[in-house]
Amino acid sequence: LARTLKITLSYDGTEFAGWQRQAHARTVQAVLEDALKPIEKGPVGVMAAGRTDAGVHAAAQVASVSLHVAISCHELRRALNATLPADVRVLAVEEMPERFSARRDARLKTYHYAIWNGATIPPFLRHYAWHVPQALDADAMNVAASLLVGEHDFAAFQGRGGDVKTTVRRITVSTIGAVHVPELVKTPADARLLRYEVAGTGFLRHMVRNIVGTLTDVGRGRTRIDEVRGILDSRDRSQAGPTAPPHGLVLWQVEY
Amino acid sequence: LARTLKITLSYDGTEFAGWQRQAHARTVQAVLEDALKPIEKGPVGVMAAGRTDAGVHAAAQVASVSLHVAISCHELRRALNATLPADVRVLAVEEMPERFSARRDARLKTYHYAIWNGATIPPFLRHYAWHVPQALDADAMNVAASLLVGEHDFAAFQGRGGDVKTTVRRITVSTIGAVHVPELVKTPADARLLRYEVAGTGFLRHMVRNIVGTLTDVGRGRTRIDEVRGILDSRDRSQAGPTAPPHGLVLWQVEY
Repeated sequence: LARTLKITLSYDGTEFAGWQRQAHARTVQAVLEDALKPIEKGPVGVMAAGRTDAGVHAAAQVASVSLHVAISCHELRRALNATLPADVRVLAVEEMPERFSARRDARLKTYHYAIWNGATIPPFLRHYAWHVPQALDADAMNVAASLLVGEHDFAAFQGRGGDVKTTVRRITVSTIGAVHVPELVKTPADARLLRYEVAGTGFLRHMVRNIVGTLTDVGRGRTRIDEVRGILDSRDRSQAGPTAPPHGLVLWQVEY
Repeated sequence: LARTLKITLSYDGTEFAGWQRQAHARTVQAVLEDALKPIEKGPVGVMAAGRTDAGVHAAAQVASVSLHVAISCHELRRALNATLPADVRVLAVEEMPERFSARRDARLKTYHYAIWNGATIPPFLRHYAWHVPQALDADAMNVAASLLVGEHDFAAFQGRGGDVKTTVRRITVSTIGAVHVPELVKTPADARLLRYEVAGTGFLRHMVRNIVGTLTDVGRGRTRIDEVRGILDSRDRSQAGPTAPPHGLVLWQVEY
């Protein structure tokens, strides 16, 4: 009898070519499916809430999978963590109704994006935060970020290769501010860690990174706060800022 | 004219075979000397406040160096950070009296040791915290830690291969408690990040890691608090606990 399981997992995206299985590249999907295969004793296909790009991290990605094997959720979690590489950890396994899909049933996704704003990026953050040495006006960035809340056509923030029916999305949270620096880091007086938090019903390809690039232009004074609404309304990618690098991005939470 | 400079640097020890130059191994000393050589246009020897072992990190290691080249401290910092690999960053360069030695003149060193106490270690902490899944009594560990403050013969906590005149050291701070978890990590309710902080005039080989192994035995209930004083008094390495792994350890600060 087939059963559907929800697997919550965390991964360090640094050494992955993203979520989605590809020939000749190490991906999270492949690593997870390869760990499930000997347990199921047969081929396994997992579906993620959202595919993450190369270098992007997950604090709590969600995947759904259909299995036949009789193993408790607790035992499956233990077995997976015993075989998975250390840069992927299963946080939870839950039994779900058969029709559950991690992608289709996701109600709200939250991403975090970290920016190290200081002259020198601590070595411990080099894979986890974008280094922006120039002065940033975080208050202006936060006002600009708030303009994105609501239902909008985010075509101006969609990266190339996006393939969706509609570019309209609803954003419920969009804020940026300074956060606590990890314990490993001795922070100079003139440096800080900024975090952009965004939650929404769905996101276009590269949308969070394009928003962060645009907000950073606001922080640098290249773009005025009142221009952000115009960029959004233009639905023109060339009006928005650069794509922020993948390694500052973390899929933080998926709600169902 | 020779000048003496103080270089404060941070490094991620994960991909280093420690501080000290070795044939056929990547070390922080070698990487730093190799970066200084083309600037000085000649051979350069740096001296560290304390040699760190393979896998051990530094939030702020201090090295001293004698150079002849006429370059400002600001420019030297920029030039070094432009050529050094991303897992080593120079935080500061300062002009010092000619006789300054990072090792000899160090007055107080502070180390931090991180323990992830929970069922599953987040992938982001795998190189920066020791994973102890068993329940730990952090209050008992903290009481035991406090017994080490003062001037004592720490022979029981000295690793093999230590080569020093005296094993007496003075510890000024020795505490352990829960600290803030890095922003990347979603912490389960039953997990926490513990940090041992220890400051002293000097440390024996593996001393901090042997103390942490012993404190963890206390936390697990393998060793009673009142046995810790006996372990110290025994001056016998076999009485103390195991050596905690290197990757939880950070050289936090050196004071002059």
